Amino acid sequence: MSEEQKYVYFFGGGEADGRTGLKNLLGGKGANLAEMTNLGINVPPGFTITTEVCTLYYENDENYPEGLEEEVEENLDRLENLMGKDFGDPDDPLLVSVRSGARESMPGMMDTVLNLGLNDVTVKGLAKQTGNERFAYDSYRRFVQMYGNVVLGMDGSDFEEIIEEKKEEYNAEVDTDLGVEALKELVEEFKAYIKKETGVEFPEDPKEQLWKAITAVFGSWNNERAISYRNLNDIPHHWGTAVNVQTMVYGNMGENCGTGVAFTRNPSTGEKKYYGEYLKNAQGEDVVSGVRTPKDISELKNDMPKAYDQLVEIFEKLEQHYKDVQDVEFTIQQGELFMLQTRTGKRTASAAVKIAVDMVDEGLIDKETAVQRIEPKKLDQLLHKRIDPDADVDILAVGLDASPGAASGKVVFDSDEAAERGDAGEEVILVRTETSPEDIHGMAAAQGVLTSRGGMTSHAAVVARGMGKPAVAGCEDIDVDYEKEQFFVDGRTIKKDEYITIDGGNGEVSYGVAPTIDPEMDENFEQIMEWADQFRTLGVRTNADTPEDAAKAIEYGAEGIGLTRTEHMFFAEDRLPIVQDMILAADKETRKEALDKLQPMQKEDFKGIFEAMGARPVTIRLLDPPLHEFLPDHDELLVEVTELKIKGNDEEKLKEKQNMLKAMERLEEVNPMLGHRGCRLGVSYPEIYAMQVRAIFEAAGELVLEGKEVTPEVMIPLVSDISELEITKEVAKKAAEEVLEELGVELDYSIGTMIELPRACVTADKIAKEAEFFSFGTNDLTQTTYGFSRDDAEGKFLAQYIEDNIFEDNPFQVLDQPGVGELMKIGVEKGRSTRNDLKVGICGEHGGEPSSVKFCHRAGLDYVSCSPFRVPIARLSAAQAQLEDKE
Amino acid sequence: MSEEQKYVYFFGGGEADGRTGLKNLLGGKGANLAEMTNLGINVPPGFTITTEVCTLYYENDENYPEGLEEEVEENLDRLENLMGKDFGDPDDPLLVSVRSGARESMPGMMDTVLNLGLNDVTVKGLAKQTGNERFAYDSYRRFVQMYGNVVLGMDGSDFEEIIEEKKEEYNAEVDTDLGVEALKELVEEFKAYIKKETGVEFPEDPKEQLWKAITAVFGSWNNERAISYRNLNDIPHHWGTAVNVQTMVYGNMGENCGTGVAFTRNPSTGEKKYYGEYLKNAQGEDVVSGVRTPKDISELKNDMPKAYDQLVEIFEKLEQHYKDVQDVEFTIQQGELFMLQTRTGKRTASAAVKIAVDMVDEGLIDKETAVQRIEPKKLDQLLHKRIDPDADVDILAVGLDASPGAASGKVVFDSDEAAERGDAGEEVILVRTETSPEDIHGMAAAQGVLTSRGGMTSHAAVVARGMGKPAVAGCEDIDVDYEKEQFFVDGRTIKKDEYITIDGGNGEVSYGVAPTIDPEMDENFEQIMEWADQFRTLGVRTNADTPEDAAKAIEYGAEGIGLTRTEHMFFAEDRLPIVQDMILAADKETRKEALDKLQPMQKEDFKGIFEAMGARPVTIRLLDPPLHEFLPDHDELLVEVTELKIKGNDEEKLKEKQNMLKAMERLEEVNPMLGHRGCRLGVSYPEIYAMQVRAIFEAAGELVLEGKEVTPEVMIPLVSDISELEITKEVAKKAAEEVLEELGVELDYSIGTMIELPRACVTADKIAKEAEFFSFGTNDLTQTTYGFSRDDAEGKFLAQYIEDNIFEDNPFQVLDQPGVGELMKIGVEKGRSTRNDLKVGICGEHGGEPSSVKFCHRAGLDYVSCSPFRVPIARLSAAQAQLEDKE
Repeated sequence: MSEEQKYVYFFGGGEADGRTGLKNLLGGKGANLAEMTNLGINVPPGFTITTEVCTLYYENDENYPEGLEEEVEENLDRLENLMGKDFGDPDDPLLVSVRSGARESMPGMMDTVLNLGLNDVTVKGLAKQTGNERFAYDSYRRFVQMYGNVVLGMDGSDFEEIIEEKKEEYNAEVDTDLGVEALKELVEEFKAYIKKETGVEFPEDPKEQLWKAITAVFGSWNNERAISYRNLNDIPHHWGTAVNVQTMVYGNMGENCGTGVAFTRNPSTGEKKYYGEYLKNAQGEDVVSGVRTPKDISELKNDMPKAYDQLVEIFEKLEQHYKDVQDVEFTIQQGELFMLQTRTGKRTASAAVKIAVDMVDEGLIDKETAVQRIEPKKLDQLLHKRIDPDADVDILAVGLDASPGAASGKVVFDSDEAAERGDAGEEVILVRTETSPEDIHGMAAAQGVLTSRGGMTSHAAVVARGMGKPAVAGCEDIDVDYEKEQFFVDGRTIKKDEYITIDGGNGEVSYGVAPTIDPEMDENFEQIMEWADQFRTLGVRTNADTPEDAAKAIEYGAEGIGLTRTEHMFFAEDRLPIVQDMILAADKETRKEALDKLQPMQKEDFKGIFEAMGARPVTIRLLDPPLHEFLPDHDELLVEVTELKIKGNDEEKLKEKQNMLKAMERLEEVNPMLGHRGCRLGVSYPEIYAMQVRAIFEAAGELVLEGKEVTPEVMIPLVSDISELEITKEVAKKAAEEVLEELGVELDYSIGTMIELPRACVTADKIAKEAEFFSFGTNDLTQTTYGFSRDDAEGKFLAQYIEDNIFEDNPFQVLDQPGVGELMKIGVEKGRSTRNDLKVGICGEHGGEPSSVKFCHRAGLDYVSCSPFRVPIARLSAAQAQLEDKE
Repeated sequence: MSEEQKYVYFFGGGEADGRTGLKNLLGGKGANLAEMTNLGINVPPGFTITTEVCTLYYENDENYPEGLEEEVEENLDRLENLMGKDFGDPDDPLLVSVRSGARESMPGMMDTVLNLGLNDVTVKGLAKQTGNERFAYDSYRRFVQMYGNVVLGMDGSDFEEIIEEKKEEYNAEVDTDLGVEALKELVEEFKAYIKKETGVEFPEDPKEQLWKAITAVFGSWNNERAISYRNLNDIPHHWGTAVNVQTMVYGNMGENCGTGVAFTRNPSTGEKKYYGEYLKNAQGEDVVSGVRTPKDISELKNDMPKAYDQLVEIFEKLEQHYKDVQDVEFTIQQGELFMLQTRTGKRTASAAVKIAVDMVDEGLIDKETAVQRIEPKKLDQLLHKRIDPDADVDILAVGLDASPGAASGKVVFDSDEAAERGDAGEEVILVRTETSPEDIHGMAAAQGVLTSRGGMTSHAAVVARGMGKPAVAGCEDIDVDYEKEQFFVDGRTIKKDEYITIDGGNGEVSYGVAPTIDPEMDENFEQIMEWADQFRTLGVRTNADTPEDAAKAIEYGAEGIGLTRTEHMFFAEDRLPIVQDMILAADKETRKEALDKLQPMQKEDFKGIFEAMGARPVTIRLLDPPLHEFLPDHDELLVEVTELKIKGNDEEKLKEKQNMLKAMERLEEVNPMLGHRGCRLGVSYPEIYAMQVRAIFEAAGELVLEGKEVTPEVMIPLVSDISELEITKEVAKKAAEEVLEELGVELDYSIGTMIELPRACVTADKIAKEAEFFSFGTNDLTQTTYGFSRDDAEGKFLAQYIEDNIFEDNPFQVLDQPGVGELMKIGVEKGRSTRNDLKVGICGEHGGEPSSVKFCHRAGLDYVSCSPFRVPIARLSAAQAQLEDKE
């Protein structure tokens, strides 16, 4: 048989055909069983049927590939020889488990059959071998039950009912009160019930049992649960599962038996201390089901010192070998320790950071590995408010960690109500089975969102992440009753207006107002960041509009400001009326008057930011949004005018409002996103840009006179053509030079442009003649490249696209590399063809998203800029990009 | 002196330094004077100072380049030698004219000095030589007057006043009544006035006169008039003018003298017959000023047979040499014919067509040249309604031909009024001094627009062309009085509500309702088109939504339909309510019901179009616009609801309207252009696309069963990602196959996509996997590439951009080659990298604009598609592109 046709991989007797590296072929479980075997760890022998067989099986109308049967037979022979037991041997039968095992863990989604090999004859052999007839028949009873359920697809509760009847008959309190006789009867009754319900005899032949079980496990790859799990978790359907056939070991044969699960370090805190639980004389399912309370792993030292020492030795061996925290399952059968599973341990963000730093200290891994081991996206958890882990919290349920951050508020079920009360200043949590575009306004006004259905890409999840709002999605334990305005969870009823707290960083939903803590960065975090900074070549700046944001960002390691939005300052309560005067000015003169009032205010804004940033570069974008954004709501005004007209009792007010309405309608645009905004305003009203630039340089100049350092960078937005930049740059340059001359100050500064339109990308060679730097505005660039606006798309068809897997990601969160990224590459290349030292950055939201940051590194950008709390994510991602580059 | 330093070019004595090919250096006049001289035509000798001198003069702070003075001296010597006359010779003085002459004619914009060389001494020599003392002093008087005006910048009317006084003194009726004495006195009085006003003596030295005049003419390049003319006509300011110094000849020396202007063929009709006017014993300005009525050129044959025969000989020689119609000026001095100017004759579109065809017949040019000689844009004149040239029309004034087409209507001055009355069905012409964004609604509702100010790129012109609406702009003879609601023209007053007619094809404004004629294509036109079709390789299709449009387009030579907009059919009165039902449907079921009603209607639409087109390909685009476009006006409804609320007298109606309003607000989008439209609708509501495709194939199938041929092409709009095309194409394919199977018909068809988003261009390689053809939708592609919407930009800041020369053209009319074109090239290249025989077309408005059509040819497109009346323009442009390619 050629290598390509190998479908079955054996493990046992100290050596294995497979290894960890073959995870795609053998599944995670199979590959690690092989690896442990090769490491000399005691693993119950067995063999793995590859994922390839699963794929071929489905491709070929549910038929196995040729040669598989022979291979399984050969491996079964090998197993019988190794174990010294035969399948179906009446005296000492070989018993096996048949389990699934995919590339990526899909816990509980697929099927398992245990105790396979038992029949009316071999059960007696098992009884004799173990000296425990009750154990033998209980195992047999379980096998028949599982066979009916898993292989024949019968309802598991039917078998439970028969057991209940039997318990009544024997006055048994619990299952374990049933004696041998009762169990023997149950086996017979189960078999009869199977025959009656399915018309099929329970097979006595172990080989027939085996093949039926293998087919059932492969079949479970495509059960409904498994399919929707894969959809939710972006696992491709063509991967397939492997099937592991493994010798049974029992932790429930007596007091010298046991079973447990453990992590080599604490997965929650990262502490270097074994972490886990075990139960004596029990099966795996007993630990999980919670019927008996398991003991802490440390107590095993007293209970079974020899097994404990072996376990510790294995822990060390596994960590040394895998260089990472391991999550293991084990069984002790009559004093002998067997390892059933090992895999890389999942951990919280803070544990990941601590473990990485500790392992470097221990010499287990190098700094590069440590930096690469932290998933940047997970830092989000550490950088948002979260529920105080030390607080005593009344947890109601745990859903998906859909959008990080903790939030408390009164439960509200209706989006209109949430919008109304939220807008009025009340803190509410919107609770829905799921959300749709009609809920957007309610989501926007709520503190957070909780849904009982939907996954990480559901409407609620996508929209909440877009809004930067905490959300727990798919919290299936809660049961929403819209009519009675309440939800049920775990036997409790939570009514409208009761307080709950959600933590979107870990999916927890708790009752009442749980105490939260602000994000903080401990020394391990600082250590990882320091290493990241050593490796990365990409700069990291922040988007900040206030001195407070700027200070926060510096704390997080920002090296400058990549974007200050001057218009955010225009919205301040004391300024809006002046801004409105400016906009509605009938002539240049009146506009100039309003601008003269705004200038000193803007100057103070900039001064604060410059002071916070010191000598670091500060990029300030001149006015960008359409002017009517600063005006009152049009529809409200229209209603007011209509009312005044009908009532006819206040001519003067009517006139005033009508004038305002008319002015607004003159400015109104069909598509404001594509209207009179950005540098187009600067071209039409050069006096606005001149005012802003004067304010910038007055602020900078005054600080220079105070002996301080400042590095202003003036950025012109929304340039589509070089001529727009020429005109506005001239205005800016003139204003800057005038101020500097007036103040007698010399100052290095630069004037550049945002590249946020496709035309700017394809004509970047021309634009670079005037632009002293580029900054990609990927929010707008994404809108124009795709031809949909964020406002219109995100909560509506785009959420649906993502949920239906039409788009893999939300392009407003994860940079669209084939489209927007391609245009960026064209822009960088053309820009540098004109000005080869052109500084290029990005200031769209993508600047803080890991895969996008890595793209920016590869595309040759000089820096990324993102909101302050994402700065550490960007630093880490940038370091990983550089390390990946080296590889 | 090296060749590069040659600043002065001599002509005369049968040979010249220059030639026609040096037009950029010598200006049009100078180059053609040289060329005629070389052809042996009798041209008064002289020399040309190059345009380069003008440029250097301005670059060098109004100083002449070194060596110029010497060169002028040398050429003056040469001229004196050739003429046998000396500058300042008391007996027989050399007299010259000094005239401007730019690369492109700027008629009347720059200055001229005649009779230069006269002074108190030489005037006597001139009197003696001509035996005409009055002529000599009249010439002298004119020179002094012109010198004061042109060289010294004095007001011309001051001199006219002095003449008037003199006429009173001598009881003279007209200038010519003034005798020698009076003229002598005038010369003295002019000189004294000059001295008094400017402090400068009139120079007696002819050389000083010459240099002052040369400088004045160079100076006139930058007078206000000339600058604004260049701005209006897109002539670069750095070109500069040449200066021609030429021996004077006189047509006013007696009855054997004369002067005239002529075309070698009729420039209005193209007829092969000399066309022009002359005056005996007159100067050029007399022909132009209209004081005396000139005679038809044919009468010269009787008046001066010898001169006439020479002129005819020269006409033939010039046409044979230049291979084109010539526009000439000539003077007959004492029986001797001198040619003063020749240039290519301007002509109307229909003349251009006739002349080109005739010249091919005459063997003067070949078919290639004929096809290249027609300016495609000018065909617009022939393809729009125009005023019947045979009608007796009361022409009020002539302005700029800003947007072709003829229209009649009542004069209205206020845009609000024009909008109101126009919308109510009245035919009005909006008359304004100029238009601004506030006039858009009035322009849209009027039949046509007339402005008294602004050029070819003024707001009115740009917007009217965008709307396809007739407009005459910059009609400076009319004087608008808004207050009295009337305008004055040529001494007449036209009041509001009087009828006028404008013809935007030739700029004519006439009184009353002038009879118009529909465009028609004569045999010459057909001939040019036939030749064009022989040369072109680019296909030409049409955009058509009705069988009538389709038929019209076939008449104009369309080879297929490139775009049928199915939504235009949805707006029909009987369908809109059903469409609204479909949109507001609460569930799929109700929507399906509405769709079922629409389907048979759509089928009939398509059947009509297929029948009109026969076997030619018909590309049908599935539903594209956002659904709320089909709903009533939001603001009106809001006002209605508010009124109903306050009045509180019709609860039921209020409820109904509120529900409608709510449904509308659900569909409402912030930026509809970037919203839920195009294939996004097809993804969300596959049943809509399925209905449309069923209708297409039922129509096609039924025609096939009737034995007819049809070639349907289904086009999916607004694809940004391959996945959208996959989904909608599957829906379309399924619907098509079902219908064809039901009908038992076999039919070749294809399914393709519009490429109208930047992302579609940069991912065209992926999209071409599914798309069987591409069609560039350059309207939307222009919007997204520039990031501005046509609705918001065109009448507003974009018009201003064009007027201020920030943008050269309106990118919605003329394809933006560096931006949008670059993305198209990327799209074509990537698309064909996947599917090398991919058919690629364009169906944006650019498909009928000459420079854009040529770009499409060069970019390797298979066809362009445009509105029916532009099909001939596209055919001609395509042919020219191919011929340019060959060169």
